[in-house]
Amino acid sequence: MAAPTEEANVTYEDLADLERDFDDVETEIIRRQAALTKPLYEKRQKVIAKIPNFWPLVFEQAPPDIDQYILPSDSAVLLSSLNSISVSRFEIEDGTDGDPRSIAIQMNFADNEYFEDKVLEKKFWYRHSKDGDASLVSEPVPIKWKAGKDLTQGMLDLVVKVWEQEKSQAQTNGDSKKAKKTQEWSPDQKALMEKIQATGLGGVSFFCWFGYRGENISAEESRLAIEKIQKERAQRASGEAPELKAVVEAEEEDEDEETSLEIFPDGDELAVAISDELWPNAIRYFTQAQEADAVSDVDFEEEDEDDMDEEDDDDDEDEGEASTKEPPLKKRKA
Amino acid sequence: MAAPTEEANVTYEDLADLERDFDDVETEIIRRQAALTKPLYEKRQKVIAKIPNFWPLVFEQAPPDIDQYILPSDSAVLLSSLNSISVSRFEIEDGTDGDPRSIAIQMNFADNEYFEDKVLEKKFWYRHSKDGDASLVSEPVPIKWKAGKDLTQGMLDLVVKVWEQEKSQAQTNGDSKKAKKTQEWSPDQKALMEKIQATGLGGVSFFCWFGYRGENISAEESRLAIEKIQKERAQRASGEAPELKAVVEAEEEDEDEETSLEIFPDGDELAVAISDELWPNAIRYFTQAQEADAVSDVDFEEEDEDDMDEEDDDDDEDEGEASTKEPPLKKRKA
Repeated sequence: MAAPTEEANVTYEDLADLERDFDDVETEIIRRQAALTKPLYEKRQKVIAKIPNFWPLVFEQAPPDIDQYILPSDSAVLLSSLNSISVSRFEIEDGTDGDPRSIAIQMNFADNEYFEDKVLEKKFWYRHSKDGDASLVSEPVPIKWKAGKDLTQGMLDLVVKVWEQEKSQAQTNGDSKKAKKTQEWSPDQKALMEKIQATGLGGVSFFCWFGYRGENISAEESRLAIEKIQKERAQRASGEAPELKAVVEAEEEDEDEETSLEIFPDGDELAVAISDELWPNAIRYFTQAQEADAVSDVDFEEEDEDDMDEEDDDDDEDEGEASTKEPPLKKRKA
Repeated sequence: MAAPTEEANVTYEDLADLERDFDDVETEIIRRQAALTKPLYEKRQKVIAKIPNFWPLVFEQAPPDIDQYILPSDSAVLLSSLNSISVSRFEIEDGTDGDPRSIAIQMNFADNEYFEDKVLEKKFWYRHSKDGDASLVSEPVPIKWKAGKDLTQGMLDLVVKVWEQEKSQAQTNGDSKKAKKTQEWSPDQKALMEKIQATGLGGVSFFCWFGYRGENISAEESRLAIEKIQKERAQRASGEAPELKAVVEAEEEDEDEETSLEIFPDGDELAVAISDELWPNAIRYFTQAQEADAVSDVDFEEEDEDDMDEEDDDDDEDEGEASTKEPPLKKRKA
């Protein structure tokens, strides 16, 4: 934390405090926006529920920061059975004073040949670590795959298993972080690591996203971190220089090993892309899909027919990039 | 304007009206955000004024949607003489009820060998065309180039000249658009077209951005367009179907030729990238630049010395891509 420009008497902490001021306003703005748009999203949900294939068509036009994570085999699931998707800011929905940046993404599916679940919901909590950095943390969400249909090749199951083990260990040992450092990895943790390392260049399934964990920060740790940040801000604002001990502490903690057992390291970025791009702009993407449909008016009827009895969807994975620009979409009768 | 899903009884206009509801909220949010952040931006301006090379360092880290427009020769100007930049939402600054999406971008320069101007300000008005689409429109801003130093190779001067001619013609003929269609292009318009067509693959200078015009929509035309949209929305909301005549009218108007004489067609996108990314995140980009500096700690002192007496900066243009990731930045003494 050296001064970037000592001759100018401006420190990194001065800049960071300015950024925190902006961040406070941004948080307030997100809160207001959520309140103002809530009735509109409800109205939209009713209107688009009447449009067949709305969400599959939106996903077809998803921007690159979403599209890049959708393999052709994922695309087949989404196009054939994604009924709807919804995003909520669950920490403020019930009138409580939570963080408006915490988001829940819920996907609703029709009967399909891949998994039993009708609803998959992934929650992301906006939390602060001891070093003051904020990030989205989550918990693995299991999927009940049908036999031989696991698109994550067992990775999601394993992440869930490891997470459950760590939770029960933490309850036994008190502090999970300290315990982990002194213990060897469990056989499941090792197996998971091997699976992650064996992942090919083609990338993992979109459904691995449900296994994203992020940093291991509890609600209580986050609350304490925010308290500390606020206290130090107040001290700096009143001219006192807070001790720098906190920084050193945080650096020790940094060696946390969680991230190396992450099956979808960009899970937070994908969540934000869905909540901040796909969700608010869904109608625009749908309209784009309609226009693209009108331009390249190719008949995919035959491919549709195969959709439900396709057996070896693994083959699709060899087709390279997750380009869903012109997938075999069911053409709606005009 | 056919119904996208006739069986579902949802029309494109229903979707468009929903989008307009969201747009109203978004406009209100931008207005509130502008009010809440104004004192913070003023505070920030005071703090960063004390940091030498703040803005050149920010530009050094500019994201691709800005960086792609900066040629090495532009970079030399920005790095050596950009003192500061500021963004204002000028239609709401003076307490009036204008559009918060209209933006003014002001750049302040130190004495330099390229142009006489100390301040260059480009304004973008958020206006609606007759077909209801909104866009940012602007007017060419002239730059007083020093002899032999015009980075736009005469294009900016020509755009300004053509624009002045069109303005005075419009005053004579009443309606500039009708007049233009019956008239031949002037010699200056032809010369400008030739210059645009002769532009090489390397792209044009960042400073051509000051020549961006966008659609030719007057304040009055925009006001009338908004009035019409609101009237039709109200009719649809009350169950009446408005006539579709307006759409046909708008399509006729579409053949406008302005855009073909645009020397910086993406000018509006660059403006938004500056106002919505570079400006709010300036401290983050600056911090990134400091970190990059610390990692690749190469001494560019010698190159600095040449900055002010460099004669043949045209050579720089042959260096290829506009990559300013590691330009010859003045190292500040720690």
